[in-house]
Amino acid sequence: MSITVTTKEQMDLLTAVFLSLRATEEEAFIQADVLTEADLRGIHSHGLQRLPVLVKRIQNGLLKPNVDPEVTWTSQCVMSVDGKDGFGTAIAEKCLRTIAPFARKHGVAALSIRNTSHLGMLGYYCTHRAEEGLICIAFTSSEALVHPFGGAEALVGTNPIAIGFPCGPLPFVFDMATAVCSMGEVIASKHRGEKIPPGWAVDKDGNPTVDPEAALKGSLAPVGGPKGYGLGVCIGLLSGLLSGAEIGNAVLGTLDVEHRCTKGDMFLLLDPKAFPGGNSFESRVGDYLEVLRGCKPQMGFSHVAVAGDHGYAMREERLKDGIPHPEEVWHAAQRLVPFR
Amino acid sequence: MSITVTTKEQMDLLTAVFLSLRATEEEAFIQADVLTEADLRGIHSHGLQRLPVLVKRIQNGLLKPNVDPEVTWTSQCVMSVDGKDGFGTAIAEKCLRTIAPFARKHGVAALSIRNTSHLGMLGYYCTHRAEEGLICIAFTSSEALVHPFGGAEALVGTNPIAIGFPCGPLPFVFDMATAVCSMGEVIASKHRGEKIPPGWAVDKDGNPTVDPEAALKGSLAPVGGPKGYGLGVCIGLLSGLLSGAEIGNAVLGTLDVEHRCTKGDMFLLLDPKAFPGGNSFESRVGDYLEVLRGCKPQMGFSHVAVAGDHGYAMREERLKDGIPHPEEVWHAAQRLVPFR
Repeated sequence: MSITVTTKEQMDLLTAVFLSLRATEEEAFIQADVLTEADLRGIHSHGLQRLPVLVKRIQNGLLKPNVDPEVTWTSQCVMSVDGKDGFGTAIAEKCLRTIAPFARKHGVAALSIRNTSHLGMLGYYCTHRAEEGLICIAFTSSEALVHPFGGAEALVGTNPIAIGFPCGPLPFVFDMATAVCSMGEVIASKHRGEKIPPGWAVDKDGNPTVDPEAALKGSLAPVGGPKGYGLGVCIGLLSGLLSGAEIGNAVLGTLDVEHRCTKGDMFLLLDPKAFPGGNSFESRVGDYLEVLRGCKPQMGFSHVAVAGDHGYAMREERLKDGIPHPEEVWHAAQRLVPFR
Repeated sequence: MSITVTTKEQMDLLTAVFLSLRATEEEAFIQADVLTEADLRGIHSHGLQRLPVLVKRIQNGLLKPNVDPEVTWTSQCVMSVDGKDGFGTAIAEKCLRTIAPFARKHGVAALSIRNTSHLGMLGYYCTHRAEEGLICIAFTSSEALVHPFGGAEALVGTNPIAIGFPCGPLPFVFDMATAVCSMGEVIASKHRGEKIPPGWAVDKDGNPTVDPEAALKGSLAPVGGPKGYGLGVCIGLLSGLLSGAEIGNAVLGTLDVEHRCTKGDMFLLLDPKAFPGGNSFESRVGDYLEVLRGCKPQMGFSHVAVAGDHGYAMREERLKDGIPHPEEVWHAAQRLVPFR
């Protein structure tokens, strides 16, 4: 019940769907690329399976193709964008390309974005900036799905942070959410008829649960207790409030098909060349990653990896052998392609 | 066996010790203040008990009072400092004061520091910047005490991050290390003759241990497994490599009395007023923190707190009632005060 498709087949399908909904060629390509890069790395929660929701959001007028974002510069180093409900993916990628030369000129720059759709895999943008020689720290927010440490209600987003560093031959990109797991993993456990591990979630009354159904009505635990909780709150403040968007329960529309998307994003760019360690930076990053990979493994582990190792290996394999999808995911996507 | 001293008594003792070792008045005050603010908040691992090591480092010529740091500006937004083995505390605080007006002018700025002593409680600097209306993201590194996820050797620092936000009446400051616990907590368990909780550490062969003695010879677990591991690595790259300092096992001298201090620091400053959410930022931060504090608690919790609540409450109490120290800590400090 699995269908394997080539990257080109998936990109062609996705761009055809977005173009048929009046996305520009650039919007269609970038949105398709963000989804496909997630699938190539095995992060299916952020891949093709999101297409039906994206299409419905466009049809419902909540995600608007072909809009002109309103851009404000408070200095050459700070760009703020009102995305006018456009594609979060294309707007973030294009604005990052715009601000990159200023990060190179001044050594540091910041980009805040509000009123755009879900960014997808946050590491996408950091990978591109790192390929261009820049360090990129990205923050974004989600609907409140996570309870505060010791709390019984969902009041904090899964608020991820991603950081990308230039490093040969491939950028080093770390990408984490501040919840102990994703709602996607809880849903997957439910579909497999399995329990979730203890410590992942509480039910709607705040009691610990291993029942995925109860977890879906409850909330997820912050990773590392008070640490993930505090970090998630900070990321909400940086991405949501600073950009002029929302925070906590006022964040809507990153996954549903009924609400305008009210999350915000924040990107910080640093040019290594502006810092004393800049000249040897890429090679020293690579050397340190090799030291980590060379660490003696604990019992039960075959080796020690660094962030991205698994995703890069899978990407290489899937570029060659294709991307596997559950039959129903591929067929649901195919049904969204317009007749010509 | 506990002695309670006033803030003034502790500050007088500390400044007298540093002045006797030829620190400038400003160095002596800032170093004393960093230690005392930690004790006021109950973070004794970063307080007065560090004094004997600091004194020994000065006597051994590893920490040099009254030096002129070498400052480089690559733009008005990027300041890089070679601290010439001076006081990390005073150099960081003074350089942050120097760069703050440029963060206000341009909206964003970065400060990297190398060749200075341990910063102490990282939140100290973020608190001050937040009081001045700026957001401050601080990264620093420590000796390698943490094993990679799945690894059996200590190759990553406890590499903390602190973030401070302006917010009335008190700044919101979050400060975390990326290890599941601190070596200080392991040492404290050992002194109390207690086991450490499972999951905190592995022994020198990489096997899980609850014996603090074995943990001290082994390594600490990263918080949240691969998440704390990845974040700790990124913080090492940002603070250590970018500043031109060291990373991993090459980081020495943050706690010992034999090595030059080779860690690095990185500070990013953002002016909320440069961003669309800037006008209402402080009040919206405060409103959200109140929402979090109002969260229904889980069973076993009396209430939900936000980062800093506990520390601020303790600080207020101790400013009034004094700071308690184990007798031997206070007496060890007193023995370092010179005869007049």
